[in-house]
Amino acid sequence: MKPRWTPARVGDALHEVDTPALILDLDRFEANLERLMRSSTVRGMRVRPHAKSHKCIEIARRQMEAGAVGICCQKVSEAEIFLAGGIDDVLVTNEIIGKRKVTALASLAVRYPKAKIGVCVDDVRQVRQLATACRALAAELDIYIELDVGHGRAGVPDTPAVVDLAREIKLHKCLRLRGLQAYYGSAQHRRSVRERRQAITAAAGLAGAARDGLLAEGLTCDIVTGGGTGTFPYETGSGVYNEVQPGSYVLMDIDYGKNEFDPIAPAFEPALYIIASVMSARGDRVTLDAGLKAFSTDSGPAMPAFEGWQVRGVSDEHTVLIRVGSDGPALALGDKPLLIPGHIDPTINLHDVIVVSRNDVVIDLWPIEARGALF
Amino acid sequence: MKPRWTPARVGDALHEVDTPALILDLDRFEANLERLMRSSTVRGMRVRPHAKSHKCIEIARRQMEAGAVGICCQKVSEAEIFLAGGIDDVLVTNEIIGKRKVTALASLAVRYPKAKIGVCVDDVRQVRQLATACRALAAELDIYIELDVGHGRAGVPDTPAVVDLAREIKLHKCLRLRGLQAYYGSAQHRRSVRERRQAITAAAGLAGAARDGLLAEGLTCDIVTGGGTGTFPYETGSGVYNEVQPGSYVLMDIDYGKNEFDPIAPAFEPALYIIASVMSARGDRVTLDAGLKAFSTDSGPAMPAFEGWQVRGVSDEHTVLIRVGSDGPALALGDKPLLIPGHIDPTINLHDVIVVSRNDVVIDLWPIEARGALF
Repeated sequence: MKPRWTPARVGDALHEVDTPALILDLDRFEANLERLMRSSTVRGMRVRPHAKSHKCIEIARRQMEAGAVGICCQKVSEAEIFLAGGIDDVLVTNEIIGKRKVTALASLAVRYPKAKIGVCVDDVRQVRQLATACRALAAELDIYIELDVGHGRAGVPDTPAVVDLAREIKLHKCLRLRGLQAYYGSAQHRRSVRERRQAITAAAGLAGAARDGLLAEGLTCDIVTGGGTGTFPYETGSGVYNEVQPGSYVLMDIDYGKNEFDPIAPAFEPALYIIASVMSARGDRVTLDAGLKAFSTDSGPAMPAFEGWQVRGVSDEHTVLIRVGSDGPALALGDKPLLIPGHIDPTINLHDVIVVSRNDVVIDLWPIEARGALF
Repeated sequence: MKPRWTPARVGDALHEVDTPALILDLDRFEANLERLMRSSTVRGMRVRPHAKSHKCIEIARRQMEAGAVGICCQKVSEAEIFLAGGIDDVLVTNEIIGKRKVTALASLAVRYPKAKIGVCVDDVRQVRQLATACRALAAELDIYIELDVGHGRAGVPDTPAVVDLAREIKLHKCLRLRGLQAYYGSAQHRRSVRERRQAITAAAGLAGAARDGLLAEGLTCDIVTGGGTGTFPYETGSGVYNEVQPGSYVLMDIDYGKNEFDPIAPAFEPALYIIASVMSARGDRVTLDAGLKAFSTDSGPAMPAFEGWQVRGVSDEHTVLIRVGSDGPALALGDKPLLIPGHIDPTINLHDVIVVSRNDVVIDLWPIEARGALF
């Protein structure tokens, strides 16, 4: 799928890039990639980065080359895109329901027989639908039971429910019980190290009990997986988890930047920007040509990547900046300042391509193939 | 551009639609379309609906068939898509700057010589860039001077600045001065009728003075255009404006629904929904498979289109609903409830297709051709 409007060509200087567009700083990106894989906080762990953050096959490939065992995604349509892109181990860290979705996932197992394809369940009806689809297509899938370790969003509530669901899975030869999905989403952005650590200590207690419950019944639990950019060092240190799923680490955003830094963790740096043009200027107020359709505001607006200016307002296609001090650049009509996204996942999902730069020169364009893969 | 994953086929019942997806209720849509065009609140006015809301050629075509003089859009790349779709009068209600954008717009005037193509300016440098591009391509463009009537986002501040800019435009034969863009964006969602009416009275005063200033200098001002879904009856009643630009009226959303209703205005009803599946259910808590990538939350989350349930949380791919009373439906795993978007413009921009329904049956699929047209 070729983007219809390409914001840049290889060799362009950054100030030649059409706006608004996503700019990836390749030096920072590569540093983040290395920092994770070399960190003692993932030592001995399987690392399965979450591709819902970036939705980009090239980034997933680089994560695999750096040592990831596979990727996570959230949607069957995302799994399809990454499998087609050559990623051969994809876990859908989410429940799916309905004939169309379960059939689509089972079909992927047929189409990519050498790939590992997994999905989560938290209800016997999901298991039965998956089994019916797999039997019809002679497909097999890896199954992870999602345990609710605190978020209250999905997952079975306790060890007896895990064991019950595992027994149901074992009834179906086409479904391979692999272990537990024990991701604590809402813990990722708890600001203090203490809160994040406490949350994961509690999660690991629940996950460990569920794993022990499965093993005590002679059931399988090879993998306990979970952990995001905000907490993975604590999953690693728990003695329970053996796989972590950080996603945002490789690009970062304002929201993760607000977390209290834990010195045991790698120091990831923002590697993704939005470039926008000053399309109207009135002294200490400038209006940029990037708004709600160029970045999401659920975790606050994108922020200037420089001093002296603040966001006064964001509307569909505009962001108004006002000068708040004598530091920082003068901004004039036609200038192209950089912003840092508030929350990368829904921001990247608004764009068709990432403009990749090194030393302020465009060196590549990476399509965001899974942009809009909602299904 | 064909969507890669189609959520429905014509003839499907709504409960067969893959989720999450946009559902348009065609009866309501048609009623909104008629209500606007038949309303006394647009009598004698040129109606130029804003296509930034829907980004869909089929909707623009229906607006033209219903009597619109043309459409508005915000981006050159949107203008390109609507012109290619057969809409022959497109006003970019926004400033553009930079060689690439001005050249792209001038090229459209060459490619569509019978179309009317307009753009806004608020700075002499935009005018000169546009003139240079038009001269190079032997193209002509319609030019509207944007006047800041209160929003403080773009536009020149006062009548002398309007006159100065008009004199500059007149120097360039390839640029046709058409009039004033006098849109008061931030007035659209002032909740009380009194506030909205006051804001537009003030705006019309400024626009009228600017128009008179142009005419007194022998300069052109055939069109004074502005007004959105929240205020267009007041622009119509002002005696100054002769064109209005409502966009959201045809689909509506939660945010516009919160405005105090003015009995002089047409009673538009929500016509666009998000259909989502219950992918996890735990008693009085259900989790839907639609989150920040299926609807925007800048004006609050999408809300259930039924009683008895409230949104407890929204994350990238999930919305958690909790039961808040005995009214309303029971929701079970696999059910597909409808939500009403908080803000349609950035919500539609997340999807590739609108599933069109009548009496809960899918009767058409309309591509959202300008989805992601950021440039």
